[in-house]
Amino acid sequence: MLESSQLVAEVAQEIVPVDPELLKVAQLHLDNLTKPIGSLGQLEQIAARLFAIRKGQLDAPMRKSVCVCAADHGIAAEGVSAYPSEVTAQMVLNFLAGGAAINVLARLHGASVHVVDVGVNADLLHCEGLLHKKIRNGSRNMLHEAAMTDDECSQALQCGLALAAEVANNGTVLLAVGEMGIGNTTAASVLTAVLTHSSASDVTGRGTGVNDEAFLRKQSVVEQVVSRLKGEGNTIDTMRLLQSAGGLEIAAIVGILLGAARHRIAVIIDGFISTAAAAIAYALVPAVQDYLFASHQSVERGHRLLLEYLKLKPMLQLDMRLGEGTGAVLAMPIIESAVAIYREMATFASAGISGATE
Amino acid sequence: MLESSQLVAEVAQEIVPVDPELLKVAQLHLDNLTKPIGSLGQLEQIAARLFAIRKGQLDAPMRKSVCVCAADHGIAAEGVSAYPSEVTAQMVLNFLAGGAAINVLARLHGASVHVVDVGVNADLLHCEGLLHKKIRNGSRNMLHEAAMTDDECSQALQCGLALAAEVANNGTVLLAVGEMGIGNTTAASVLTAVLTHSSASDVTGRGTGVNDEAFLRKQSVVEQVVSRLKGEGNTIDTMRLLQSAGGLEIAAIVGILLGAARHRIAVIIDGFISTAAAAIAYALVPAVQDYLFASHQSVERGHRLLLEYLKLKPMLQLDMRLGEGTGAVLAMPIIESAVAIYREMATFASAGISGATE
Repeated sequence: MLESSQLVAEVAQEIVPVDPELLKVAQLHLDNLTKPIGSLGQLEQIAARLFAIRKGQLDAPMRKSVCVCAADHGIAAEGVSAYPSEVTAQMVLNFLAGGAAINVLARLHGASVHVVDVGVNADLLHCEGLLHKKIRNGSRNMLHEAAMTDDECSQALQCGLALAAEVANNGTVLLAVGEMGIGNTTAASVLTAVLTHSSASDVTGRGTGVNDEAFLRKQSVVEQVVSRLKGEGNTIDTMRLLQSAGGLEIAAIVGILLGAARHRIAVIIDGFISTAAAAIAYALVPAVQDYLFASHQSVERGHRLLLEYLKLKPMLQLDMRLGEGTGAVLAMPIIESAVAIYREMATFASAGISGATE
Repeated sequence: MLESSQLVAEVAQEIVPVDPELLKVAQLHLDNLTKPIGSLGQLEQIAARLFAIRKGQLDAPMRKSVCVCAADHGIAAEGVSAYPSEVTAQMVLNFLAGGAAINVLARLHGASVHVVDVGVNADLLHCEGLLHKKIRNGSRNMLHEAAMTDDECSQALQCGLALAAEVANNGTVLLAVGEMGIGNTTAASVLTAVLTHSSASDVTGRGTGVNDEAFLRKQSVVEQVVSRLKGEGNTIDTMRLLQSAGGLEIAAIVGILLGAARHRIAVIIDGFISTAAAAIAYALVPAVQDYLFASHQSVERGHRLLLEYLKLKPMLQLDMRLGEGTGAVLAMPIIESAVAIYREMATFASAGISGATE
């Protein structure tokens, strides 16, 4: 058995689906609030699920964090991105300086930002404030070999599990995940094609905004990697898939999601990349789904397929495609709204309001 | 000429579309921020439009208010709602006590709540904190006569205009509108059918949750009123439409929206009812559209048609159908996020980040 699979099998034993009885208790409370039954739609479902995740303890304000995992991708050498690989490291410095979109949004919405170097192709050891968890200077080129070895993948998963444990320890109950890695929409496209049984053209988008030529190259890369994987056998093992396409930051996010579920933390996923990580986590341990919240529907075409695969409904429709966890942090005030509704609204009885006549 | 039309014609002269040059200035700034061009999607468009609305002055934090207009509807006598008319007044008391969904969300997101009695069928003069602007104890039954006389409609519009002036005076730059009025989805359905040239079945939803019998009754009422209006001539004057279907709170919201545009305040519209008011305002004064932001896509089937008519894209997809301004207030943190992005993000040059290679 793969070392990574062994690790996940162990964690899986500690991931428990939420108690359906608690969901019912929560819905009963929501039905007594001064509004027509079900009229707050998804806000009600969010509140009920959080109530169940937190075992009936819906405290406010909630401590919030966002983990931004950064890594480079060997596949970037094939010219699949509009930006050079150097941008991964440059953006990490931008995160640390507080100037990126994720910093701005996290500041506004009160979430602490954790920036993690899981595999950036640059020496960042001197950078203060960065979590130094580099496994390798970028994943391998998946066109020619598996993006990660089993050992590298296992290290990335462990990094994510440790991060989840850390934020759980500091009291985080609402966690967003994000990423940075030039080339990572290509990796996510391969994961999506295999998991959702879709063609390369159905799952490949423009990423950061490639031109037509690079777009065709990107699609061809996805097609070649997917064919190679399919050629290896009838069913593709999920862990093998993750190792084949990578990247290191995606594996780390898989670890974070599993770890969050283990520690009963609600996790908000972001765009195409982190949702691909969520789909891998779900394929590995289906019970993780109870702990996941989808923030927005990205412009990346494969994102919709992944959300369907995960049976999750996005809250926001903003045509975003930035990553970094930006969409996930934008969903935080919505989740906090659901909690406030649950905790603070009057009931029909307490407010002396007539019920429905039928 | 109708007195109400005269009033609107006067206000229209003071409503100026936003300067397209300012939109360009804003987009230029957004394109220099450390993210792929356009990758923040609607957030960028929101920021640019706000920049233009505020004539290049994007201050933060923004002062936020929500106006909740309440009125009863004569049409409720036809049994078109799941709740008795008394609930309108009861909910007004709930708003004043701070126990309704809109109070909870406004508290969380820092918006002040203004509750306005434009036409509740109850004596609420003793209620502290309520804005007493009652024009009539509920609109007339539109199945038998126009819901409002010209004079009543004009008073409701003036009430809205005055409210907008008041919140502008207290420094509000971001305003949400909401409503309460048992029976008001029936009024909104008539407005929608006529404005969007749709059939009664295309625009009539379940409102607060009517059963099948009441739903058919509601649809038939909408059909009868629409036929009567159509029978009166080839083109239906917008002001005549508003007066025919009402309600008083809808006319007041039309006034608020026009007043907000006049005072260069950004307004967030909520669900079916307030969007119907926005569609009326837009039909009366097209330039008002530049000042409107759509918050969410309601479950009410007519809502999508209205948003298309207004050429507005909702930010949230939460399957809500409560009204009160709840969806609009939920969109406030998104708009604040857009402003923070505009004000606080680093540029490519300042952060020393490489641009796209193509």
